[in-house]
Amino acid sequence: MPIVTITITREGSGPGRSAATAEEKAALIKGASQLLLDVLNKPLDATFVVINEVELENFGWGGLPVPEFRRQQQAKKA
Amino acid sequence: MPIVTITITREGSGPGRSAATAEEKAALIKGASQLLLDVLNKPLDATFVVINEVELENFGWGGLPVPEFRRQQQAKKA
Amino acid sequence: MPIVTITITREGSGPGRSAATAEEKAALIKGASQLLLDVLNKPLDATFVVINEVELENFGWGGLPVPEFRRQQQAKKA
Amino acid sequence: MPIVTITITREGSGPGRSAATAEEKAALIKGASQLLLDVLNKPLDATFVVINEVELENFGWGGLPVPEFRRQQQAKKA
Amino acid sequence: MPIVTITITREGSGPGRSAATAEEKAALIKGASQLLLDVLNKPLDATFVVINEVELENFGWGGLPVPEFRRQQQAKKA
Amino acid sequence: MPIVTITITREGSGPGRSAATAEEKAALIKGASQLLLDVLNKPLDATFVVINEVELENFGWGGLPVPEFRRQQQAKKA
Repeated sequence: MPIVTITITREGSGPGRSAATAEEKAALIKGASQLLLDVLNKPLDATFVVINEVELENFGWGGLPVPEFRRQQQAKKA
Repeated sequence: MPIVTITITREGSGPGRSAATAEEKAALIKGASQLLLDVLNKPLDATFVVINEVELENFGWGGLPVPEFRRQQQAKKA
Repeated sequence: MPIVTITITREGSGPGRSAATAEEKAALIKGASQLLLDVLNKPLDATFVVINEVELENFGWGGLPVPEFRRQQQAKKA
Repeated sequence: MPIVTITITREGSGPGRSAATAEEKAALIKGASQLLLDVLNKPLDATFVVINEVELENFGWGGLPVPEFRRQQQAKKA
Repeated sequence: MPIVTITITREGSGPGRSAATAEEKAALIKGASQLLLDVLNKPLDATFVVINEVELENFGWGGLPVPEFRRQQQAKKA
Repeated sequence: MPIVTITITREGSGPGRSAATAEEKAALIKGASQLLLDVLNKPLDATFVVINEVELENFGWGGLPVPEFRRQQQAKKA
C-alpha cells in the first residue's frame, strides 16, 4: 500500500522543454514502484505514485522563489 | 479541525466528460464532511476538504502510468 | 486510484478515550471508500485511505494551538 | 530541512485579480522561511516552501464548496 | 528541489521486525534521490525525502483497514 | 481557508531538548497564521496549521538520512 508523492517544479530537463515529458514521468513511476519492491518487497500493484508539478514561482528555497534563488546562487559562483 | 484531502485523476465519470463535475465535487465535499460528523462528531464548520485533481499521466499504479496500467489490466481479462 | 487522507487531532470522541478507536477508524475508511464509489464510481479496491492523527499541540486554528483556541471560543460564549 | 506547504484557494486578494500575485507568493515564501529561522533556528537554505493553489470549487468548508459556503455565511449576517 | 514523500505502513518486512529498519529507510532515501538524479538530472543535494509511517489500522484499502483487507484477500485465494 | 503544513525533524533546538517545545510550536502556528493574514488578508480563524514531526532517520537529504548527511557536511568543512 505504499504511496509515493513526487513534487517537482514544472520545467523542462533540457532545451525546448517546458515540463517533464511523459517518458520522464513514466520513468519516475516505474523507478519509485520498483524501489518499494526492492527494499520492502511491496508488489508493484500495491504502490500508487503521484507526480505533483509545481510552478516555479510557487516553489521557494532560501527564502526566495526558485528563479530568484537560482540567480542568486549563480551570482555567488561568478 | 479535520482536513480531508481527496486525490483523484482528472477524467470524466461518464461519456462526454473530461473531469469531475462541479456537482460531483460538491457531493464529495458534502459526503466527506458528513462522515466526520457522523463518526467523530466533528461539526461541519470545523472540516476542510481539498480535492486534488491529478493528470492521468501523473498517476502511477503497478509501476505504470494509469492509462497503460488500465490497458494492461484489460488485456489480462481478454 | 483515489487517495483519501483524513487528518484528525489525536483525542477521544467521548469520555475515557484518548484517541479515535479502531472502530471509528474502520468507519472512516469504509465511509470514505464508499463515497468515492457512490460519487465517481471508483471500485472499493482502487481507493486508499490514510488516517493521519496529529497531537493537539501540533494543530493550530485561529492562530493558536487547538487547546487554547477552544478555551478562547468557550470564553467568548460564556 | 523544514518543508512548508501552503494551500490556498486560487482567487485574487483584491479587485481585478484572479489569483495570488507573484509578489504575494514571494512574500509567503520569505515569511515562512523566516519563521522557521526565527523559531527553530533553521537556516533559510534548509527550508523548502510549496504554494499549492486550489480552485474554489475544489475546496470545501462547512460541507459546501467555498463559494456556496460564503454565500451562506453572508446570508446569515444579513 | 524535488520532495519525495513515501507513505508506508508501520510493519516489518520479515519475521521478528515490527517496522522498516534504519537500513531499509536509508535505501529508500538513497534510491528515491538517485531516481530524481537519473531521470530529471536533479542534484542529490536538491532532493528531500520524507518517510511517513502509518499504523496498520490507519491505512485502508478496499473499504477496510489493511489487516482485515489482507484476511479477506487470503480467504478469497483459499 | 488556507492550510499550512510545517514538516520538521523531531529534534530539539538546543541542549537538553529532544523535540520542538510547546512554545515553539505555538510560535510557528501564530506566525504562519499571521503571515496569511498579512499577505493575503485571510482571517486568523480561516487558517489551519498542522505541524508534522518526522524522525531524523525518516528524513533524507543529499541521498542520505539527515544524521549521516550532517556528518558528511561537517567532514567537508573540517
